[in-house]
Amino acid sequence: MLFLVRMDVHIPTDMPAAQADEIKAREKAYSQDLQRQGKWQALYRVVGEYANYSVFDVESNDELHTLLSGLPLFPYMKVHVTPLAKHPSSIR
Amino acid sequence: MLFLVRMDVHIPTDMPAAQADEIKAREKAYSQDLQRQGKWQALYRVVGEYANYSVFDVESNDELHTLLSGLPLFPYMKVHVTPLAKHPSSIR
Amino acid sequence: MLFLVRMDVHIPTDMPAAQADEIKAREKAYSQDLQRQGKWQALYRVVGEYANYSVFDVESNDELHTLLSGLPLFPYMKVHVTPLAKHPSSIR
Amino acid sequence: MLFLVRMDVHIPTDMPAAQADEIKAREKAYSQDLQRQGKWQALYRVVGEYANYSVFDVESNDELHTLLSGLPLFPYMKVHVTPLAKHPSSIR
Amino acid sequence: MLFLVRMDVHIPTDMPAAQADEIKAREKAYSQDLQRQGKWQALYRVVGEYANYSVFDVESNDELHTLLSGLPLFPYMKVHVTPLAKHPSSIR
Amino acid sequence: MLFLVRMDVHIPTDMPAAQADEIKAREKAYSQDLQRQGKWQALYRVVGEYANYSVFDVESNDELHTLLSGLPLFPYMKVHVTPLAKHPSSIR
Amino acid sequence: MLFLVRMDVHIPTDMPAAQADEIKAREKAYSQDLQRQGKWQALYRVVGEYANYSVFDVESNDELHTLLSGLPLFPYMKVHVTPLAKHPSSIR
Amino acid sequence: MLFLVRMDVHIPTDMPAAQADEIKAREKAYSQDLQRQGKWQALYRVVGEYANYSVFDVESNDELHTLLSGLPLFPYMKVHVTPLAKHPSSIR
Amino acid sequence: MLFLVRMDVHIPTDMPAAQADEIKAREKAYSQDLQRQGKWQALYRVVGEYANYSVFDVESNDELHTLLSGLPLFPYMKVHVTPLAKHPSSIR
Amino acid sequence: MLFLVRMDVHIPTDMPAAQADEIKAREKAYSQDLQRQGKWQALYRVVGEYANYSVFDVESNDELHTLLSGLPLFPYMKVHVTPLAKHPSSIR
Repeated sequence: MLFLVRMDVHIPTDMPAAQADEIKAREKAYSQDLQRQGKWQALYRVVGEYANYSVFDVESNDELHTLLSGLPLFPYMKVHVTPLAKHPSSIR
Repeated sequence: MLFLVRMDVHIPTDMPAAQADEIKAREKAYSQDLQRQGKWQALYRVVGEYANYSVFDVESNDELHTLLSGLPLFPYMKVHVTPLAKHPSSIR
Repeated sequence: MLFLVRMDVHIPTDMPAAQADEIKAREKAYSQDLQRQGKWQALYRVVGEYANYSVFDVESNDELHTLLSGLPLFPYMKVHVTPLAKHPSSIR
Repeated sequence: MLFLVRMDVHIPTDMPAAQADEIKAREKAYSQDLQRQGKWQALYRVVGEYANYSVFDVESNDELHTLLSGLPLFPYMKVHVTPLAKHPSSIR
Repeated sequence: MLFLVRMDVHIPTDMPAAQADEIKAREKAYSQDLQRQGKWQALYRVVGEYANYSVFDVESNDELHTLLSGLPLFPYMKVHVTPLAKHPSSIR
Repeated sequence: MLFLVRMDVHIPTDMPAAQADEIKAREKAYSQDLQRQGKWQALYRVVGEYANYSVFDVESNDELHTLLSGLPLFPYMKVHVTPLAKHPSSIR
Repeated sequence: MLFLVRMDVHIPTDMPAAQADEIKAREKAYSQDLQRQGKWQALYRVVGEYANYSVFDVESNDELHTLLSGLPLFPYMKVHVTPLAKHPSSIR
Repeated sequence: MLFLVRMDVHIPTDMPAAQADEIKAREKAYSQDLQRQGKWQALYRVVGEYANYSVFDVESNDELHTLLSGLPLFPYMKVHVTPLAKHPSSIR
Repeated sequence: MLFLVRMDVHIPTDMPAAQADEIKAREKAYSQDLQRQGKWQALYRVVGEYANYSVFDVESNDELHTLLSGLPLFPYMKVHVTPLAKHPSSIR
Repeated sequence: MLFLVRMDVHIPTDMPAAQADEIKAREKAYSQDLQRQGKWQALYRVVGEYANYSVFDVESNDELHTLLSGLPLFPYMKVHVTPLAKHPSSIR
């Protein structure tokens, strides 16, 4: 079951660089682990913004919320989720 | 080069069904042709709306505009394009 | 799997009353059938508006889109879907 | 009398974890008490957001305001209330 | 129980004047009857707009919806309802 | 001359409680004095929000601005003013 | 007493030119009459839009509503009114 | 003096193709004449939309309004103008 | 050449009063000097808000930007500029 | 390939002037270097705002994101990117 997710990151400008780097490193590992599992199917940077559009493939709404709220950057993010369905013209 | 595109379709409610069906049939063929060429990489229905989110993979902005403005439903659509870049955490 | 759905109905003011009544009658039957099946779990009128908030309980995004796009009033509706998850403080 | 309430929580990112935990524990107890009384009829997490949609069943606007403004997290919330009425197609 | 209601009227510019006048006359009578009953407690014109802000005093959300959806101009209105509670600084 | 005023209060969450209480006490006295004078004709709490809708009856725009900008909570408020006129259907 | 008023004009594109011209001629005469009386103190075109910003000097909200709702183009306008007060730094 | 102008075109979907083509042909000639004069300095299509961003170089606000309101497509456009100034980092 | 300018002032609530007063005093002197020169043609307080609408009469966009960005309160302001043209119905 | 970019700068009002000046100096050098390379084709100040509209000419979305996210002021900017295509009426 697919969902489009937009995440906008707002790290406070006064956070020490070392702390920000540590959170970002954990975020990257967390994200790549989910990508390898096939749950985080696609991850794109929005050009010019500290934001991404992602496609998640999960079993349920609950699973998606668990994955998103576990993001190390979650406290610094604005997240919007759009549920997706199969399109009748899609050839996949 | 990837772009996220959202298309919202607003067919006038007084358009004769035959005319609407004919346009939709052309739209489907047009879309599937581009999907087979790999230019229209993904096509998702937004749940509950006559709208889609799509990912296009094109050579240039000009090519993308040519593809989108050629859509049979283009005169009845509101289209919004977001340019995408490679995300540093993407494993692809 | 639960979803909150808001539907705003905009029937053209020049639609003949008989046609509008026929569509609304089919809408009511369609809705009540889904309510009896337990898929349309709750249906509330927004006070002062020709709109409702509903809770759907479905197996998947695809099922929800099929149910919503099959609504007799769908061509005259603006629909917005919000996926819901279990809240950790909910006692249910 | 039913109301749909959306609550978005914005705890300052510099609040000490112990303080935040203490407020959240009180919030949970407060919420579950109202749920057991039947006044907080439903409580759903919005997927991907630190937010909920809730249904309250109260005697009056004044009672609802008293309940909401007494939430331990109230100073950190953006709250929006929508009054609901019986829908003519509802089978309940 | 008090509610603030804003109503914006959009009569189609091609409605025959006689039809519009007849609806407005019924609207006026309907409104004045509710005002005399004390249910439509206040009615103000928004300066420069075909719109009003009103205060209703009703027993329930259901009663308010019944009153509003019965307005002769209801099909041509955008209505927004805000529930009001007693303010602790009010001297009334 | 009547005006509808909406005030949204945003007291910084790190203001000491004693300071906030002192400002609120002055606000209450200020408001009740104006209510007794008949200038602040109505004062309603917006359900679920730290906000109010008020009706002012003043001689001029200048008088209204003087009253509003003198509010002890003014530096912490977002204020929006809507000028009101007599409605032709009002029975008052 | 001064008010800033923005008016956006939306004449239906299918209105016959003669009818539109007749309304616009009446609008111009109406506007110039009020300007000569000093009630319509300033009238500016918004560059690139069929819209204006105007300053009115009137005795009351009621007078302003009467003037604006009497505009020949009123049924085709979106109007927004902002009440103005004397600015403490103004030298006038 | 430079201005950024965004124009969104909304030709009614029921306008006969011949009429639309004739207006568009006049629009193109009008635009190219102004481009050759150096007044319409740049003209870009917004990808995926029937819209453009343009840069105008004119003597005054009045001249810009005259040019824009003379566009053959003006009655079918939503236009927004942003005045531009020299940027201190610009090397031009 | 005329421009309508709206300025919304947001002085941080924790700025020492003496500092705020000093900036406001400089702002007042700056503004009154420009008013006396005829460049800041009108200055109105928005009722109920720490904001103003102003009319500037300048030679160019560059001059206007220089004047506005030199305002002592500029770092604490949100500014929006609307270019104005002569209105064909204006009698001035 | 052209893109219109709007950048709004929000430097915290409590940043020491020396630090702000140093970042702005680096920003200017960075910008002028890209302008000389022809990648940052145009740079305009938005009148009255600490913002700019720019035109970039790049090979790809990825290149544009690299350029923008490398801006010394990037952590203090809100950036919005609009992809541009050749306009059929452009004479260039």
